[in-house]
Amino acid sequence: MAARKHRPDDPDSSGRARPKRGAGGRRRPPERAVWLYGVHAVRAALANPARRTLRLLATEAAAAALGAAGARAEIVPRPAIDAVVRAGAVHQGLALQTMPLEPPALARVLAEAPAGGAVLVVLDQLTDPHNTGAILRSAAAFGACAVVATTRHAAAETGALAKAAAGALELVPLIAVPNLARALDQIAEAEFWVLGLDAGAARTLDQAAPPARVAIVLGAEGGGLRRLTRERCDELVRLPMSPAVDSLNVSNAAAIALWELTRRLRPA
Amino acid sequence: MAARKHRPDDPDSSGRARPKRGAGGRRRPPERAVWLYGVHAVRAALANPARRTLRLLATEAAAAALGAAGARAEIVPRPAIDAVVRAGAVHQGLALQTMPLEPPALARVLAEAPAGGAVLVVLDQLTDPHNTGAILRSAAAFGACAVVATTRHAAAETGALAKAAAGALELVPLIAVPNLARALDQIAEAEFWVLGLDAGAARTLDQAAPPARVAIVLGAEGGGLRRLTRERCDELVRLPMSPAVDSLNVSNAAAIALWELTRRLRPA
Repeated sequence: MAARKHRPDDPDSSGRARPKRGAGGRRRPPERAVWLYGVHAVRAALANPARRTLRLLATEAAAAALGAAGARAEIVPRPAIDAVVRAGAVHQGLALQTMPLEPPALARVLAEAPAGGAVLVVLDQLTDPHNTGAILRSAAAFGACAVVATTRHAAAETGALAKAAAGALELVPLIAVPNLARALDQIAEAEFWVLGLDAGAARTLDQAAPPARVAIVLGAEGGGLRRLTRERCDELVRLPMSPAVDSLNVSNAAAIALWELTRRLRPA
Repeated sequence: MAARKHRPDDPDSSGRARPKRGAGGRRRPPERAVWLYGVHAVRAALANPARRTLRLLATEAAAAALGAAGARAEIVPRPAIDAVVRAGAVHQGLALQTMPLEPPALARVLAEAPAGGAVLVVLDQLTDPHNTGAILRSAAAFGACAVVATTRHAAAETGALAKAAAGALELVPLIAVPNLARALDQIAEAEFWVLGLDAGAARTLDQAAPPARVAIVLGAEGGGLRRLTRERCDELVRLPMSPAVDSLNVSNAAAIALWELTRRLRPA
């Protein structure tokens, strides 16, 4: 396909495409459409049958590197891809316009989680898409059954999140809930042990010995867990660390908690 | 001090200040000067007596929040700070122009590391400043004695790195070495067990039982450890993970390795 000038859909800084107003021969994309970018994120999205994809833009080299999946790409010069992704984003010559995934209901995930051992990650108002993406990646690596986040004050499914997740957005459901306290009640009723990471906790993660099903709750950098969230936890633990340091990067803390709590679930 | 228009030093995208060419009544900053930004990074840099600082720009509110340390700030409007930091950087109204730290020589760090237990982090061509910054933060949290990186193909001390390190750049020396293989020889001679993280390793991190002094070696995302680096390792281990996932974010992997390997060193 011939190269063509694109100024598609004026993405705002969130990476979400705005509906197209003018004429131009192309159908106006649904309002919730997002642009994913980067080799890992785009390749994984294309391989996910649950993804409803709209357009694939690729440089000639990037389309070739995609193999068969690249056949449907609109071949464009690099600046056309720059124009649809967040400024400065490392898109590696690939951008895929797609509808956000429709995650399963929390109730279904809880019902289907193995009784013998399961881990859930719960994010209390984490707004940084890079951290949320990296947490999805670690959640996928250690077999967590879902990442639960709030509908508001949270990172939405955007290009930056998908890039940081490096494909894991297609592997682990990211479930947004309107009311986190209520979701934690539901999680506790499903016999998950609700374990909050909190710098002020008396016990450490090493000392925790949760039962087979555990939900790890992480708060925003700076704020930590909100009071209502803390009150829903069965147990609060901290990561023991040097007194000169306030806290870890939240995705680093999540990785440690996942590593530690899935020890029994890991193949040797 | 009155607000004033600044277009200081035309920082390039690396966050490094270029020497000032024109007149303007202000002395030309040394070529290696960098702008640090963000509350944690700037506060920690100001509190570090080893830092040679040049200028502190702050919005009125940010200067007030700094307390006594804010007294020397040039009060400027927010756009003047936008102009000296990387586009889109979250500077929180604070930018500090400073010389990079002069880290101790590797030989000195090795000589002073406690015989009873010490951890060193070695980065093989990690170029992402956010990952390197987050690794410094975890290294500080878990009491690592230094982070060693290559002089070339590595993240330099910049605003983005310092921001991600959230103050840890002032706590843990970041030592750049021209030849990583030679540095690893030096580290091994100092009786550190050189443990490389490598996705292709036969043994897992759980199975490693290194002696009291250990150096954790991490490769770049994508490439992993270079052959010459791998050959210098006493042992290679992998993090066991779901076959659907290639790798973790490298700062997440570093956090897990630090957590696991400092277990014996941690206070309960």
